[in-house]
Amino acid sequence: MADSDKKTKTSPDAKKSTLGITVKKGEDMPEWYSQVVLKAKLADYSPIKGCMIIRPYGYSIWQSIQDYFNRVLKELKVENAYFPLFIPESFFMKEAEHAEGFKPEVAWIESKPAGDSEENQERLALRPTSETIMYDSYSRWIRSWRDLPLRINQWCNVVRWEVKDVKLFLRSREFLWQEGHCVYETEEQADSEARMILDEYAKLAEELLAVPVIKGRKTEKEKFAGAKTTYTIEAFMPDGKALQMGTSHNLGQGFAKAFGIQFLGADEEYHYPWQTSWGFSTRLIGSVVMVHGDDKGLVLPPRIAPVKVVIVPILFEDSRDEVLAKAQEIQDLLSEFEPVLDDRDEYSAGWKFNDWELKGVPIRIEIGPKDLAEEQAVIARRDTGKKEFVKMKDLKEIVAQQLDDIQKSLLERARKFLDESTAEAANWSDFKELISQKKMVLAPFCCEVECEDEIKSETQGVTSRCIPLEKPRELQKDEKCFHCGKPAKELVYFSRNY
Amino acid sequence: MADSDKKTKTSPDAKKSTLGITVKKGEDMPEWYSQVVLKAKLADYSPIKGCMIIRPYGYSIWQSIQDYFNRVLKELKVENAYFPLFIPESFFMKEAEHAEGFKPEVAWIESKPAGDSEENQERLALRPTSETIMYDSYSRWIRSWRDLPLRINQWCNVVRWEVKDVKLFLRSREFLWQEGHCVYETEEQADSEARMILDEYAKLAEELLAVPVIKGRKTEKEKFAGAKTTYTIEAFMPDGKALQMGTSHNLGQGFAKAFGIQFLGADEEYHYPWQTSWGFSTRLIGSVVMVHGDDKGLVLPPRIAPVKVVIVPILFEDSRDEVLAKAQEIQDLLSEFEPVLDDRDEYSAGWKFNDWELKGVPIRIEIGPKDLAEEQAVIARRDTGKKEFVKMKDLKEIVAQQLDDIQKSLLERARKFLDESTAEAANWSDFKELISQKKMVLAPFCCEVECEDEIKSETQGVTSRCIPLEKPRELQKDEKCFHCGKPAKELVYFSRNY
Repeated sequence: MADSDKKTKTSPDAKKSTLGITVKKGEDMPEWYSQVVLKAKLADYSPIKGCMIIRPYGYSIWQSIQDYFNRVLKELKVENAYFPLFIPESFFMKEAEHAEGFKPEVAWIESKPAGDSEENQERLALRPTSETIMYDSYSRWIRSWRDLPLRINQWCNVVRWEVKDVKLFLRSREFLWQEGHCVYETEEQADSEARMILDEYAKLAEELLAVPVIKGRKTEKEKFAGAKTTYTIEAFMPDGKALQMGTSHNLGQGFAKAFGIQFLGADEEYHYPWQTSWGFSTRLIGSVVMVHGDDKGLVLPPRIAPVKVVIVPILFEDSRDEVLAKAQEIQDLLSEFEPVLDDRDEYSAGWKFNDWELKGVPIRIEIGPKDLAEEQAVIARRDTGKKEFVKMKDLKEIVAQQLDDIQKSLLERARKFLDESTAEAANWSDFKELISQKKMVLAPFCCEVECEDEIKSETQGVTSRCIPLEKPRELQKDEKCFHCGKPAKELVYFSRNY
Repeated sequence: MADSDKKTKTSPDAKKSTLGITVKKGEDMPEWYSQVVLKAKLADYSPIKGCMIIRPYGYSIWQSIQDYFNRVLKELKVENAYFPLFIPESFFMKEAEHAEGFKPEVAWIESKPAGDSEENQERLALRPTSETIMYDSYSRWIRSWRDLPLRINQWCNVVRWEVKDVKLFLRSREFLWQEGHCVYETEEQADSEARMILDEYAKLAEELLAVPVIKGRKTEKEKFAGAKTTYTIEAFMPDGKALQMGTSHNLGQGFAKAFGIQFLGADEEYHYPWQTSWGFSTRLIGSVVMVHGDDKGLVLPPRIAPVKVVIVPILFEDSRDEVLAKAQEIQDLLSEFEPVLDDRDEYSAGWKFNDWELKGVPIRIEIGPKDLAEEQAVIARRDTGKKEFVKMKDLKEIVAQQLDDIQKSLLERARKFLDESTAEAANWSDFKELISQKKMVLAPFCCEVECEDEIKSETQGVTSRCIPLEKPRELQKDEKCFHCGKPAKELVYFSRNY
């Protein structure tokens, strides 16, 4: 083996990683995105077409989201449960729109698996969503008004087979999500809780992920297969595409009728209840990467960062022990933030800086021999890149303040981008111009499915994102649809999307 | 509608539940078990053959187990991740023993699902366990000794199709589990960590679930398909069957060789690493039901009880407000235990007592009009049924003490049963006699697969459970196998099992 070969093989990962991200976010966002996700070790491609692997660093973010939302669920008296992965074909067929909507995406298991001696078993799907399998049980569990409201959530994997080219976190044949499924006596209860969940989703996106969203409801064309109303939160990515972050459906009574869910009311009569379902998935992690990341890699909001603070000692032979001792002292001092002390011998301080920047750690603390006498350390912020000297006695307070400030600044910066990215169009030519400028375009719209089909086709993929719940302005009486010229019914946001 | 019909329909659940458990645990344990699981609403049968539904009350116990074990994982520097549900057929085939072992249990997805235009896609299995899909990635992620140890765990669903008749929590085609998969430089590290995990499993079983276990390793016949050594914890159920609670495998280098996992050592040479895998599943919940439950239903150890304390006010018209106010005061006083105040109007106090007993709530507090003047309440313990008056000022302390005591007493009682259930046999006729007495039998054994096959066949299902790690006594030099008479190699536990 030649000497040069040897060196390469000693630390192939080190060599690869120092290269960092090789494209700029503004120049080739798809390539930038996949490099960031892979090199920060959030996720990896899998040998199965269309599937992804969520690596520990990415899964830790998902766990933060789960912890946060489990606390919300507890407050809302929603309980976690687990239903089977398999759905009998006949269940799908019970709700016609639902069956039609999911038909192209369903994967089925082989009709006679090993060890199964029966020939005529019903065909089984892998759940793309669990309305049907859950509501079959609900029809047996719900007897009277005393059993309502029934509020159940599950965290699980779902399978949607249509996906061909995996986009890590954003689009894959299997992904992780939560799906809530609630049952109420009245439509008012169902609708108000569907909206309340949407509010909680918006809070999660903004307060936890620092990703601002627009709350709205979907048009007839875009609503969930089987829903009466679909509420949505939409974020806007730096490449001019919207990302649907979560949806909450008022299902009406359609599923209750299809699955025979009835309750005996206090009036001694039987009634069909009203239902909701709502979900968000691991794609949320993709939004965090796109919204906050920069040319150096990931930038993580402190509240979901697996590592909030990293301490990098600057080591020289003659002061090594003292500096390491001080670094450990800092680690103890900041224990509430669970800082990582990167004391690895095999990498240089510069390499470590790059590596932790790539991984988006919010705060880096540098401590070198010159800082010892001064009783100070350097704090470097990942979001702004700013570095400052901080006295040891102030360190804990400053770190707490800066983590707080980074969380807020990321949200503000993203909100500014969202605000600057929305624009209004009154007619088709303005609309096309604004879309070409990568805007999220608000326009008066007839809300008819045919018109929306035409818009999508004529623009190669622009879709309505939502009818905003907080209206930017009132629709005037005589406004016309920006596309077909018929009377407008709503002001609607349109854009390209993930 | 006749009046009598009306009444039945007003509270069908109430009527059904007051009936409680209709068989005695000692008389028909399988029927008792399924009634307890169904009526306490831990789980339900599903319309899909072989699958179960974990209801919120049961899932909450699983979450307690997850929370506990996630803390252990963090201590052990094992990180959570998520790998695909699908495993290409060729992956299975790479490790011969593994492929053979899982062949009869694997479910496959249809070769050409909707939306998939390619014809020649490889056949995909639903994971029965994830060694193969994970180690394929490991072969790409591991380059040098710097990448080791690699310690990853995942919480997920797995599918094993062989199961025909579902036994809720104990045996089903799909179940939830955790599977840890670690990679080490040396065999010593791998084996010592495999044993350390076993110790953690034993602690979880005993300290959290109050289920005592015997730690051991599996015989050649019973070890995991592809493992070098399988360590196990075995519990013993009141009906004389063992329940395997968790296993931890030293996988040797077999998978590393099959999947081409190699690392460059500090010696500049390439080496195959040593691996472990280890898992426990939702069947743990089944052990809790069987070990602690009684003729009234579930008995839950406080540390995993979704409700630790329930307050039942005894309401009469003329003192209703005062009693309810006092009950709320108690709820506030005991807030650290998150007690449930059952103030439902539609059920009697007696009905509520039965219902909470069925659900296994460790402590019930009764408060009635007579207790107000005395500044007292009644505490009833679920495990012993004992009731005592406690002064309000002592309530919090006594509740804390009793929860602690119930947790300990349940473990002690179960340990006494386990000790009384083990017995030693020196020969075949003693062995058969002890098995017929529903014992866990320790016997000197040749450890040969053929001999074990014969034992299983001649006893209609008795299997070796483990070679205990803490030996009850040393094997003598000249001891013979209790079955075949050849020289004995180990003292081995045998019994029927779940």
